[in-house]
Amino acid sequence: MSNTIGERFRVTTWGESHGPAVGAVIDGCPAGLPLDLDDLRAELGRDVPDAVLGTPRREPNEPEILSGVFEGRTLGTPILILIRNEDADSAEYLKRRSRPRPGHADLTWFQRYGHVDPRGGGRASGRECVGRLAAGAVARKLLGIAGVAVSSRILELAGIEVREEADLERARDMARRASRDGDSTGGRVALRVTGLPPGIGAPVFGKLTARLGQALLSIGGVKAIAFGEGERFARMRGTEANDPIVGAPEGIRPATNRAGGVLGGISTGLPVEVSLTVKPVPTLPAEQDTVDLETGQPARVAGVGRFDKNIAPRVAVVAEAMAAIVLADALLDAGVLHPTRLPEGPA
Amino acid sequence: MSNTIGERFRVTTWGESHGPAVGAVIDGCPAGLPLDLDDLRAELGRDVPDAVLGTPRREPNEPEILSGVFEGRTLGTPILILIRNEDADSAEYLKRRSRPRPGHADLTWFQRYGHVDPRGGGRASGRECVGRLAAGAVARKLLGIAGVAVSSRILELAGIEVREEADLERARDMARRASRDGDSTGGRVALRVTGLPPGIGAPVFGKLTARLGQALLSIGGVKAIAFGEGERFARMRGTEANDPIVGAPEGIRPATNRAGGVLGGISTGLPVEVSLTVKPVPTLPAEQDTVDLETGQPARVAGVGRFDKNIAPRVAVVAEAMAAIVLADALLDAGVLHPTRLPEGPA
Amino acid sequence: MSNTIGERFRVTTWGESHGPAVGAVIDGCPAGLPLDLDDLRAELGRDVPDAVLGTPRREPNEPEILSGVFEGRTLGTPILILIRNEDADSAEYLKRRSRPRPGHADLTWFQRYGHVDPRGGGRASGRECVGRLAAGAVARKLLGIAGVAVSSRILELAGIEVREEADLERARDMARRASRDGDSTGGRVALRVTGLPPGIGAPVFGKLTARLGQALLSIGGVKAIAFGEGERFARMRGTEANDPIVGAPEGIRPATNRAGGVLGGISTGLPVEVSLTVKPVPTLPAEQDTVDLETGQPARVAGVGRFDKNIAPRVAVVAEAMAAIVLADALLDAGVLHPTRLPEGPA
Amino acid sequence: MSNTIGERFRVTTWGESHGPAVGAVIDGCPAGLPLDLDDLRAELGRDVPDAVLGTPRREPNEPEILSGVFEGRTLGTPILILIRNEDADSAEYLKRRSRPRPGHADLTWFQRYGHVDPRGGGRASGRECVGRLAAGAVARKLLGIAGVAVSSRILELAGIEVREEADLERARDMARRASRDGDSTGGRVALRVTGLPPGIGAPVFGKLTARLGQALLSIGGVKAIAFGEGERFARMRGTEANDPIVGAPEGIRPATNRAGGVLGGISTGLPVEVSLTVKPVPTLPAEQDTVDLETGQPARVAGVGRFDKNIAPRVAVVAEAMAAIVLADALLDAGVLHPTRLPEGPA
Repeated sequence: MSNTIGERFRVTTWGESHGPAVGAVIDGCPAGLPLDLDDLRAELGRDVPDAVLGTPRREPNEPEILSGVFEGRTLGTPILILIRNEDADSAEYLKRRSRPRPGHADLTWFQRYGHVDPRGGGRASGRECVGRLAAGAVARKLLGIAGVAVSSRILELAGIEVREEADLERARDMARRASRDGDSTGGRVALRVTGLPPGIGAPVFGKLTARLGQALLSIGGVKAIAFGEGERFARMRGTEANDPIVGAPEGIRPATNRAGGVLGGISTGLPVEVSLTVKPVPTLPAEQDTVDLETGQPARVAGVGRFDKNIAPRVAVVAEAMAAIVLADALLDAGVLHPTRLPEGPA
Repeated sequence: MSNTIGERFRVTTWGESHGPAVGAVIDGCPAGLPLDLDDLRAELGRDVPDAVLGTPRREPNEPEILSGVFEGRTLGTPILILIRNEDADSAEYLKRRSRPRPGHADLTWFQRYGHVDPRGGGRASGRECVGRLAAGAVARKLLGIAGVAVSSRILELAGIEVREEADLERARDMARRASRDGDSTGGRVALRVTGLPPGIGAPVFGKLTARLGQALLSIGGVKAIAFGEGERFARMRGTEANDPIVGAPEGIRPATNRAGGVLGGISTGLPVEVSLTVKPVPTLPAEQDTVDLETGQPARVAGVGRFDKNIAPRVAVVAEAMAAIVLADALLDAGVLHPTRLPEGPA
Repeated sequence: MSNTIGERFRVTTWGESHGPAVGAVIDGCPAGLPLDLDDLRAELGRDVPDAVLGTPRREPNEPEILSGVFEGRTLGTPILILIRNEDADSAEYLKRRSRPRPGHADLTWFQRYGHVDPRGGGRASGRECVGRLAAGAVARKLLGIAGVAVSSRILELAGIEVREEADLERARDMARRASRDGDSTGGRVALRVTGLPPGIGAPVFGKLTARLGQALLSIGGVKAIAFGEGERFARMRGTEANDPIVGAPEGIRPATNRAGGVLGGISTGLPVEVSLTVKPVPTLPAEQDTVDLETGQPARVAGVGRFDKNIAPRVAVVAEAMAAIVLADALLDAGVLHPTRLPEGPA
Repeated sequence: MSNTIGERFRVTTWGESHGPAVGAVIDGCPAGLPLDLDDLRAELGRDVPDAVLGTPRREPNEPEILSGVFEGRTLGTPILILIRNEDADSAEYLKRRSRPRPGHADLTWFQRYGHVDPRGGGRASGRECVGRLAAGAVARKLLGIAGVAVSSRILELAGIEVREEADLERARDMARRASRDGDSTGGRVALRVTGLPPGIGAPVFGKLTARLGQALLSIGGVKAIAFGEGERFARMRGTEANDPIVGAPEGIRPATNRAGGVLGGISTGLPVEVSLTVKPVPTLPAEQDTVDLETGQPARVAGVGRFDKNIAPRVAVVAEAMAAIVLADALLDAGVLHPTRLPEGPA
């Protein structure tokens, strides 16, 4: 079903942007994993939008764990995590409910379901990602046991390439200026997985590239994804593109990592490197052309709710969570982690 | 499982490159679809490599349908399609079985399974795609009922951008020259889906972008994928990136198609536009550095079997098949096609 | 995963008996189904144990719907239903946590997970079924649209065959007397599905008998299941066992219903008839032999928590819910209900 | 999908009774399992019907392995097994294609798919089970590694209880006499799994009872299933029904096995005991009432093809195969067998 991802470590997210709550249920997490609310808070806290690029909506994002954990450890049963939507204001959305916003899912949801949930984009809202972050926090704990870590960084924002900290400041400034002009901006994000042993991932349709691709392209606003040298491969020659194989203290490995850590869909033991392209936020302060679904007549719609100026930084955090979920699944699939119980260790 | 793709229209491919046969079993195809061997031959015939870029291996690719079809129509039961491997020569592969080829799955498969099938890459070979093409042929027939068509074209080959027929000749020539130098080349492919009604695709993890992403990134050699304006979105502003919504004779639609036919993971009714980046063929006539898995010592390996000079044209055909499979699944999921029986019509 | 059932109408239950809450998430329910808390209360209220056979634990079972419903109708998104555990007392359970109860899952869960959730049986408790009842309430609403109804009745209780109301009184009395002797009793339950159109259910492993079998045998305490004439078929002859086929105003049907409404795994249009055997409640007031998991020494354990005297009446209610879930799934699978949107109608 | 069973060890059967072939594709079998044609022949040979009860159709049932095995061991890739249908005669079936046979799937398949495959019952034929036997042979090899064995015996045939060898002769004679009278008979079968370690099976919907229930009720003709004391539990008291827990050299176990080897859906370490009820063969030499689907008029149909007199012995063999498949899946799920590679050992 479309709200579930994973085969061994299976995550289902639920909840609408302006409903009572959002969250996730995680099935397949082995018993014995230390897990508490602070683990979740650490991840959910990363989604608090910053003063420059973010929305004025300020969710405390306080999680509750309603099942699957007892005495500080997972039970092997489904873990239900819930985050209340405390700061939702649907009034503005309801006013323009018959006018789908360009670049949004409003129109296509209407075409699929014959109705539209007008409250802040419903389940097509970025708010749905809070459930992903919660599940990602659990996945990350599991990865920790296997020594695997996931991180991200901004590659480009509002047209400015980000190579060092100063660039990021400049880019944020550019994004803010676009916003003042009634416009929005996009960007690019890099994702990096380290510590992944070789041999993880499955052949054919279960390739790590394919699973990560599905997971990352399921994040709203992501329009392109590339592994290793990515689009540059099109202009390389085989002798430039191949990574020679060498002996190394940690085992036989590629000497270089143009492939981005994956060959034939299976990890090589080198870092997995992925990049994502994020489109500009479609909700704009300026008015845009649309059609009123009730009258069928041309209409105008402007972003009157709360919205980000640039979502690339939030996409980066969600991308980490999705990668963590995919990798937890892959580690269980490959037998690196035992499916029902983890080795004893400090909680 | 990793050899199966799809939920409603479910395809499992099977078979090793140098085993007795390759093929696919397709479950979930409704009853009543006209299907015969010529439908399969038409699709399988497109994989015959051309004289310039292809491998000397010449498979007749003659399909057999062993189940699921009776009196020229599908029964609603699993369709088993089999293609014999008539022209497989494993001798050269067996000689260098302990020396994994750079850029290939040899090493990573060994690390996952503790063994390597040295016969032409086994199931990591492009030969596995013959099963995908057969299943794609069935999917394409199903799409035809709903008026949906899938096509592809080469965007770039061996570093040459392909805008018109003459460019393609020039690009093939470039690829051949690289091959004569002991090297190989990559390229880029565009995929286009027309006739897709709006409202197809599912929210969250079942987004059309996510499902197509998984399917296309599962093709060997594909390293990047982009929808609509793709990586260009990173430098666009919201006012440039959004497609305004307009009334049209065929319904309410985006006026432009920068999004590539998908919003919020659901089709808009405009063509779905995807591009793929294909890395250079990793098997090279020239020797490359590797390590002998038995001795642990550095070794050299050269491509002594049969291999393509450039696989972008073959990837394009497989990408069409994968897209057809994903879309057949999505049409069934959305209720556009009835799950068990099709309307009567001419066979 | 083991906490999820169904392919089109997919139910995941979560929650431990003495955790903060239990519930279900339902994915795949089409948009537009009228649903409110009273629908859930009606089903959950049937689980309130009666004064004679039930446990003193008195849950108000007040449900919350946290997602998937807006303005009184389903959205097509996951429906999260939550019921707080307000009346849980784990103290007695914790005292004897190292002494697994005979006839219970305590020992086998310990063997699978390396730990035991000692709080009232954790997720192996009958309390888990509250999530099933909530999901069953949603399924039942969906069945109503197709004119399908599910009912149950007690066939046998505490050794007394129940043919009429008076028998049931006598049987309850017998169960109460057994309980006073420090013992418990079992029973048999009949399940009946009416209004199911012919052609529902799928071949081979998706047979309606197989899916119902899985669903009903997943209820704690159910040890046998039979369709139509059930075990009596073993002694019948073909001429007695077959149902002749006749023309009827509603279509071509079997004239009799020895088969129990299913042939070849697919519905015939006659009522589906299933019977279940329920074992005696394993928790007893009397002491029973066990082994202390910490010391490895023989020990004694008595039922000191709250427990039913006979669970057949509660199993009947859960069996209805499970059958409703399986049939909602099958109606969607067969295309009788549209997968994404229901026809408009009164809420 | 309905032609696939299992999550970790996943079996898809394909093929119609009178099509070119039947078979199975098995995904999820770890690499390194010794497997050859004789393993398959041993299992398929058990389905050769005996002279007394069987059909005159004599299939050599010679298997081919077309993928997934190399140098006598599994590769970890899908295993495609094919058995040609060499002795199919559809002529008699085609004559009466519009007259559905009572007690068969003819009518219900027509109602689901809008057509009927008249050739020997198509995929609803017992012939479909040959694919199950082939997959069961692979599962049995896998079970062997874990020391698990599956066996069956006839409990009752043609109304005669079978306690010893002499009873079976008498029962077969009774079945033959019924057949001479133009009638058929049913029976009961016991299934027994030994060597299963404790802790196998999953909670809630993945209970071993539930999974075995689905698998066994998916066999044509099986109408009832019971675990341990089965229907007798209805009349037992808790003190009689519970198995006390004791210390034993092999670990803490139930002292008796009324539960049939499963508690809370998870194995106890004692033998799993299941019984099945098989209905009489619905195809009879005598004429039976039906309706002609083309004319809508009453008609008569007699069994003119080849058919068994009693299928209980064949059901027993298929039940073993299905149990082996379910248990292989459960052993992988529980981490008893490694998911990708088996320990080295003699082939």
